[in-house]
Amino acid sequence: MAKFVPSDVLVERALVGDSAAMARLMSRAEAATPECRPAFARLYQKAGQAHIVGITGVPGSGKSTLVSTLTLKLRAAGKRVGIIAVDPSSPYSGGSIMGDRIRMSALAGDEGVFIRSMATRGAHGGMARASLEAVDVLDATGFDYVIIETVGVGQAEVEIARAAHTVVVVSAPGLGDDIQAIKAGILEIADVHVVSKCDRPDANRTISDLKTMLTLGLSLSGGASWQPKVVPTSSAQGEGFEELITALDRHAQWMRSSSAGQDRLRHIAEFRMLKTAEDLLSQQFLATRKPALALISGQLSERRISPYQAAERLLAGFQLEGPA
Amino acid sequence: MAKFVPSDVLVERALVGDSAAMARLMSRAEAATPECRPAFARLYQKAGQAHIVGITGVPGSGKSTLVSTLTLKLRAAGKRVGIIAVDPSSPYSGGSIMGDRIRMSALAGDEGVFIRSMATRGAHGGMARASLEAVDVLDATGFDYVIIETVGVGQAEVEIARAAHTVVVVSAPGLGDDIQAIKAGILEIADVHVVSKCDRPDANRTISDLKTMLTLGLSLSGGASWQPKVVPTSSAQGEGFEELITALDRHAQWMRSSSAGQDRLRHIAEFRMLKTAEDLLSQQFLATRKPALALISGQLSERRISPYQAAERLLAGFQLEGPA
Repeated sequence: MAKFVPSDVLVERALVGDSAAMARLMSRAEAATPECRPAFARLYQKAGQAHIVGITGVPGSGKSTLVSTLTLKLRAAGKRVGIIAVDPSSPYSGGSIMGDRIRMSALAGDEGVFIRSMATRGAHGGMARASLEAVDVLDATGFDYVIIETVGVGQAEVEIARAAHTVVVVSAPGLGDDIQAIKAGILEIADVHVVSKCDRPDANRTISDLKTMLTLGLSLSGGASWQPKVVPTSSAQGEGFEELITALDRHAQWMRSSSAGQDRLRHIAEFRMLKTAEDLLSQQFLATRKPALALISGQLSERRISPYQAAERLLAGFQLEGPA
Repeated sequence: MAKFVPSDVLVERALVGDSAAMARLMSRAEAATPECRPAFARLYQKAGQAHIVGITGVPGSGKSTLVSTLTLKLRAAGKRVGIIAVDPSSPYSGGSIMGDRIRMSALAGDEGVFIRSMATRGAHGGMARASLEAVDVLDATGFDYVIIETVGVGQAEVEIARAAHTVVVVSAPGLGDDIQAIKAGILEIADVHVVSKCDRPDANRTISDLKTMLTLGLSLSGGASWQPKVVPTSSAQGEGFEELITALDRHAQWMRSSSAGQDRLRHIAEFRMLKTAEDLLSQQFLATRKPALALISGQLSERRISPYQAAERLLAGFQLEGPA
């Protein structure tokens, strides 16, 4: 087995472009070892230069293809691009499904691209915290764009995309009714709407539906803040990507220059702090109260106590640690 | 405005079949008001007779249609059926999307059926706790079957389906590749596999793929525990539902009579206790630490501290309440 390399040494290596060190830091973010906290504090301090773009869409929307094509276009413009793909995964085995492999062909061997899949983990969470630490690794080491790609279904998954500076929601023509219904739930988080597969004849309908929806929203909001854009793309024909990059850049500019943009950065920081606190709490909790779990859940299972009583008994024996 | 009715009075009414009282109790479960805790403790104690069936599947699998048809068949056999549909919902407005309305036509006006949609809520969770309390309302008031229907994408959503006695995963022929990939992640949680839309000619392929997968799993597990069944159905032609009900009943029998089944009930209780504890913690936390949120997240946003330092400062001022 390889010798343990301290996380601060990995940070030194990552900062001079060692991609193996970056990958190892991301694994430590997933493992949530306390040893790596000072290293991640340092990365966080260095981060803040990259444009973080959340890209989400229902299954079938073509978001992975869009991310690949967008990355190729950004590379052609000389930008370095990191991709954190948060994948739905097996609840038992924790294995990641969509994986890097599908995309690797077009982007393989390019040192200006870094792709990492983060599997959605088991019951104890930590996915948001770990994903955003992985984003910091890429941000701090000089990637110009960091794309967080998540499936647009599932509360936890959608939340992560919203922790980006700019949220792109991908819609596609010709999806079934229940997919459309789920899509409706994520449309309102978009800063930029992409309609993918615009080489299809039924794409115009999808575009005009979105524009109508946005016009209605505009008259309600009074138009004081950012107005979401609709960008038609075709990955097959490589069309629409200049417009998409322009829309992303304009949104980044708006974030920097408006007070609403600054408020949003504070909200993102608040989300991140809460997710980290939640994770710390849950780690401390399991470390100290694991022995009590079986006893109390046995009483609950036999209906001798209620779920609230069980939860209170569990919490009663829990002492928060002081700050490290 | 109507006079406030105490939750224990609502429980009295619900226990004699007042469905308006049941609905109000479910709303209080969602609102998580401490006043209703003793009432829910009483419901939990009375519950434990119903067969809780979790039904999940990817968008497009036909699970809502399956739930409707299954409910009609169970009604024809004289059983009372409750349905808790956990819907993906707008992260901003909290509105439920798929809703009861789609299904109401076939099941409307039948007092032996109760349908409730629970929208997936905002960032602070509580969805699992509230959904399972709604299940208790139906269980304690004499429903024979309580179906928890969730979309099979998203960590939180899949978890809830797994808190049922019997987990049904619905597969359909002819779905796209990325839907299939997501489906793969939930197949392994199934006690019963339903292949819906079996009037379609390509259904045989889906059935044989599932059976092959199960044969491989069987040779690995040694066959000591429950062997998942594959049940082809067609809601359009009303076929396969007797077989499905038989499979559900056999699994319920296995849960009652095997030690593995009893272990699983304890795991379900443990999940429920943890989700309730998490929810209590987060309620107490927000109640006491809300004033500190803006200050600390401002420091974080300016990168003067790291996410871990922010989380620790936030937790440092938090005192757990003693048991009520």
